[in-house]
Amino acid sequence: MTEVATARRSRITPEREAELYEAVLDLLREVGYDALTMDAVAARTRSSKATLYRQWGGKAELVAKAVRHTKPGGAGLAEIDTGSLKGDLHALTLRSDDCTMEQNSALMRGLAMAIHGNPDLLQAFKEYLIAPEMAEFRTVVQRAIDRGEVRPDNPAIDYVMHMMIGGFAARSMIDEQPPTQAFLLSYIDAVVLPALGNQNV
Amino acid sequence: MTEVATARRSRITPEREAELYEAVLDLLREVGYDALTMDAVAARTRSSKATLYRQWGGKAELVAKAVRHTKPGGAGLAEIDTGSLKGDLHALTLRSDDCTMEQNSALMRGLAMAIHGNPDLLQAFKEYLIAPEMAEFRTVVQRAIDRGEVRPDNPAIDYVMHMMIGGFAARSMIDEQPPTQAFLLSYIDAVVLPALGNQNV
Repeated sequence: MTEVATARRSRITPEREAELYEAVLDLLREVGYDALTMDAVAARTRSSKATLYRQWGGKAELVAKAVRHTKPGGAGLAEIDTGSLKGDLHALTLRSDDCTMEQNSALMRGLAMAIHGNPDLLQAFKEYLIAPEMAEFRTVVQRAIDRGEVRPDNPAIDYVMHMMIGGFAARSMIDEQPPTQAFLLSYIDAVVLPALGNQNV
Repeated sequence: MTEVATARRSRITPEREAELYEAVLDLLREVGYDALTMDAVAARTRSSKATLYRQWGGKAELVAKAVRHTKPGGAGLAEIDTGSLKGDLHALTLRSDDCTMEQNSALMRGLAMAIHGNPDLLQAFKEYLIAPEMAEFRTVVQRAIDRGEVRPDNPAIDYVMHMMIGGFAARSMIDEQPPTQAFLLSYIDAVVLPALGNQNV
């Protein structure tokens, strides 16, 4: 166990990691989550299954991190600091171009189905995708509070993720279109900023 | 064809219709959409398959209408007219008790999965569930515009359904809880009313 725990802390290069994530996403698009096996990932990426398990623990974590990897600058929201809530939320949206969002939208629909039958996938999604995004939104909103743009007791602060997820999910369902940058910017201006009492529009 | 078209216009009693919808929902909970057959519905309800097809056209329409039927007073929003947007939206929410919402939430998760592989179910959902709900929200918002509570050019008017669906979907996903009346009332007050520029809170 000590050996495994130590090995799991060892790092692969960022290039190799990106290559692995790309292969996982390709396989996901080809066969879906349930039919995806660690054997297939190992074969496609010419790595050993032992390495994959050491590095990622299992399929759910590997898939969640691969999806997270498609979000450009996923870890770098702290670098987006435009000086206004509107500017920050727009910059956050503009990190993904329309083509990436359309691809992700199809991928996420497939994974949303898989999540129902795979509690470990749900947990991995919450830990590696939803929690980091919520933290990003909290950072952006906290800055707006600190600048005096948003009142600290505004009840909509707890619902920023609900509003954004609503924009994504309902766009697919009601409008039958993937969310585009233009749609999301318009939704942020019409819904998220006014709900936060932000009149800087 | 003429005979079928005429027969499809014939009516069954509302009691019999309610009984059929209940049986369809029971079967849905037992086996899911894909495994549900018109044969099983016919057997369970002691009706002929021919009758079912005449009355509902097919499985997708029958299921969508059965789900619609669980929404109390689904057709009767016009009767909710409290004199304020907040009052109307709250009354709309309070039509379903928490137990019904929890049951529907589980049912809808299953059907959301089935929709991906069944374009006819998506169409039936849009026609018999989403369109009527959107019409209800439009009625409520139009009244608020007519009373001068909401500006007719408020851009959030187009996103009322997006906001509400976001509340439902994200509640399940982020909070891992079914939406409750208390949650929805709080979400309406924190998000929907402020986005619509409604200060009557």
